[in-house]
Amino acid sequence: MHKAKTGARRREFLGRGFAAAGIGIMAAHHAKIAAANGGLDGAPLEVPDWTRMLGSGVTASPYGVPSEYEKNVIRRNVPWLTVSEQASVSFTPLHELDGIITPSGLCFERHHGGVPTIDPEQHRLVIHGMVREPLIFTMADLVRFPSVSRIHFIECPANGGMEWKGAQMAGVQFSHGMVHCCEWTGVRLSTLLDEAGIQAGAKWILAEGADAAAMTRSIPIEKALDDIIVAYAQNGERIRPEQGYPLRLVVPGWEGNVQVKWLRRLKLGDKPWQHREETSKYTDLMPDGTARQFTFVQEANSVITAPCPEKPLKAKGFHEIRGIAWSGRGRITRVDVSFDGGANWQTAALQEPVLDKCLTRFRLPWRWQGEQAFLQSRAIDETGYVQPTIAGLRKMRGVNSVYHKNAVHTWRVNPNGSIDNVQIL
Amino acid sequence: MHKAKTGARRREFLGRGFAAAGIGIMAAHHAKIAAANGGLDGAPLEVPDWTRMLGSGVTASPYGVPSEYEKNVIRRNVPWLTVSEQASVSFTPLHELDGIITPSGLCFERHHGGVPTIDPEQHRLVIHGMVREPLIFTMADLVRFPSVSRIHFIECPANGGMEWKGAQMAGVQFSHGMVHCCEWTGVRLSTLLDEAGIQAGAKWILAEGADAAAMTRSIPIEKALDDIIVAYAQNGERIRPEQGYPLRLVVPGWEGNVQVKWLRRLKLGDKPWQHREETSKYTDLMPDGTARQFTFVQEANSVITAPCPEKPLKAKGFHEIRGIAWSGRGRITRVDVSFDGGANWQTAALQEPVLDKCLTRFRLPWRWQGEQAFLQSRAIDETGYVQPTIAGLRKMRGVNSVYHKNAVHTWRVNPNGSIDNVQIL
Repeated sequence: MHKAKTGARRREFLGRGFAAAGIGIMAAHHAKIAAANGGLDGAPLEVPDWTRMLGSGVTASPYGVPSEYEKNVIRRNVPWLTVSEQASVSFTPLHELDGIITPSGLCFERHHGGVPTIDPEQHRLVIHGMVREPLIFTMADLVRFPSVSRIHFIECPANGGMEWKGAQMAGVQFSHGMVHCCEWTGVRLSTLLDEAGIQAGAKWILAEGADAAAMTRSIPIEKALDDIIVAYAQNGERIRPEQGYPLRLVVPGWEGNVQVKWLRRLKLGDKPWQHREETSKYTDLMPDGTARQFTFVQEANSVITAPCPEKPLKAKGFHEIRGIAWSGRGRITRVDVSFDGGANWQTAALQEPVLDKCLTRFRLPWRWQGEQAFLQSRAIDETGYVQPTIAGLRKMRGVNSVYHKNAVHTWRVNPNGSIDNVQIL
Repeated sequence: MHKAKTGARRREFLGRGFAAAGIGIMAAHHAKIAAANGGLDGAPLEVPDWTRMLGSGVTASPYGVPSEYEKNVIRRNVPWLTVSEQASVSFTPLHELDGIITPSGLCFERHHGGVPTIDPEQHRLVIHGMVREPLIFTMADLVRFPSVSRIHFIECPANGGMEWKGAQMAGVQFSHGMVHCCEWTGVRLSTLLDEAGIQAGAKWILAEGADAAAMTRSIPIEKALDDIIVAYAQNGERIRPEQGYPLRLVVPGWEGNVQVKWLRRLKLGDKPWQHREETSKYTDLMPDGTARQFTFVQEANSVITAPCPEKPLKAKGFHEIRGIAWSGRGRITRVDVSFDGGANWQTAALQEPVLDKCLTRFRLPWRWQGEQAFLQSRAIDETGYVQPTIAGLRKMRGVNSVYHKNAVHTWRVNPNGSIDNVQIL
């Protein structure tokens, strides 16, 4: 019976183009290893030292941490990128991650005044302006309301921005590491607005953070009534300090800057407030000198995370191309992969579940024989939007922009297996 | 337009029985708070201290940790439960968690020889016995294979076992905290068995851990060919030490004990090995003195996590009943909640996505007026299995068992808002 099942699974691989990779390649590889170990059913298996001694007990780590062997799996910053560590950014190590959930300790950080240490007992959220009744909420008040949990990506609109003019970052941690994906739990903003009562004519909401920068953005009220969450939990536990503890806005699919962290105030009004962060910053400077403003949506994007500059190819033969795709417009419907810089494309498999405004893991088997290759991925979302080329993006928006670079990315695979970050124009 | 949307959302609440809770209750509550703050649009809002100073920079925490205000959100053990901390258990703080993802640092631990410190460069996985070709894999070998990511719960079969005879644990962390839910990534075991080649007549697989206990269990090969994962990643990053770093079996829906951590060996054979952990332990002692053996599946279970003994009711009025449900047989299709100890039931809302063999978050609005209540939840899965009462479970299996207690659980709500863990027989 199990033989039948095995057969079925092998056919499944064939269907996914796995046969091209061939079981044989891997088998040859392992046979060599087995031989080096003198055959398995002869001498007994070696017993490692850690099996010969008791390990640590259950009181050793009331809150667990990664293995000491993973100490290089960390967020990293680019010292030259900002003049201060408080108005700066650290990047998610995408090359070290699998699946779609980003561990909270590795989620990229972007602050404008550093991470405040906020006492949740003292923290308040205010809703005022064009409301029937201005309200002040404690954290305990907010947790009592009907709650919702959603898994969403959050991306800084400057993700990849250093490469607009052609600069090439060292690897995927810096080229695409301003994105993460977590399960967020909180209260629908629409529930709180029902509570306060919305005055006729209210069209925008001002969101203000309690950090030293008092980060402040204007958000259309339609989005607030759609799917914005006033969130207090991240990946099951309370939000991490650098992600907005104890309270942040989660604005699904929109640029990270409007997902105001350390949220203290929401004011309703009839027009946007034209604050610094939506005039001098977080606008896209077009070739004619004008600026695209309130460009909220993070359009479809994707990147190959294995192989990548930080994870070169160490052997010929079978490799699984792995990457992540996401779209602020909804679900990812297809991801194509090219090995020749975009001349030919193959469709990758998408890991289920494929969720709305959420990272989607894609995979495609590949047999590498030592040739030079130009790896690319191209995401398509449920609206039919297709991730553009860098040339296409520059044709639309010039080279002055910093934000919303979602162009198809290229990794050059060299014959020695090393990977370079290159641009094909 | 937004008014129309608001109306639509309120109707949605009505549809979910939210109207009973009433916006009014909460509004009255907040109005009082607002008044205490002297009205919002008069004096300017108070600016807290943490907004007056720069926060910490992006190099402060390359691997982030929770806020210092969350230091009580930890795994806890029961000192009297085991004679050693190496052969012991720590419990997930379910009362502090939201959503379905368990943070890796808070996942319950169950060890039989403590947590080993394993060097992934030195670690090996062996597949031998009734195979065409015995193989030895390094971690690098395993990561090269086609991968899969799945979100699954893992539950110790002894979860709640202390209550078989009527003992009542202090709260939900100890009554139900031997369950967690993470995104696991690794290689399908069927893929590795394809590589080694299964000999005719092989029916069972022996899995052995590299810990000091050399945890060893026998697993039917049909399950291996179905959905078992040889996992190296948990919630995006490499598996935590106490969860099996660098390699563990994930056996979806089956008891935690067979999901062997620190996996070092898989041997194929034609019958189970009758190891200690499947004879003297991890069997269910029936009233007639015989033992139910190889009871792998964790049947449907659920518990209310808010309110609970650790999270009493602090005010009358609206409260959202929150809890988690899971089944080793597949998806949860319905969760009912009772306020009177099982005489009457209401159907709770299930948070999407509802996944196979995964925690499912359920919610139901409730208006508490200070009365005594007996809160229960009852899970039903896609096979039609209904979570049994404790009386029904004892009628089937007596009171000698330690494992597989999945009975409907009762929280008694007292008039002062405190919650007691009680059994209704």
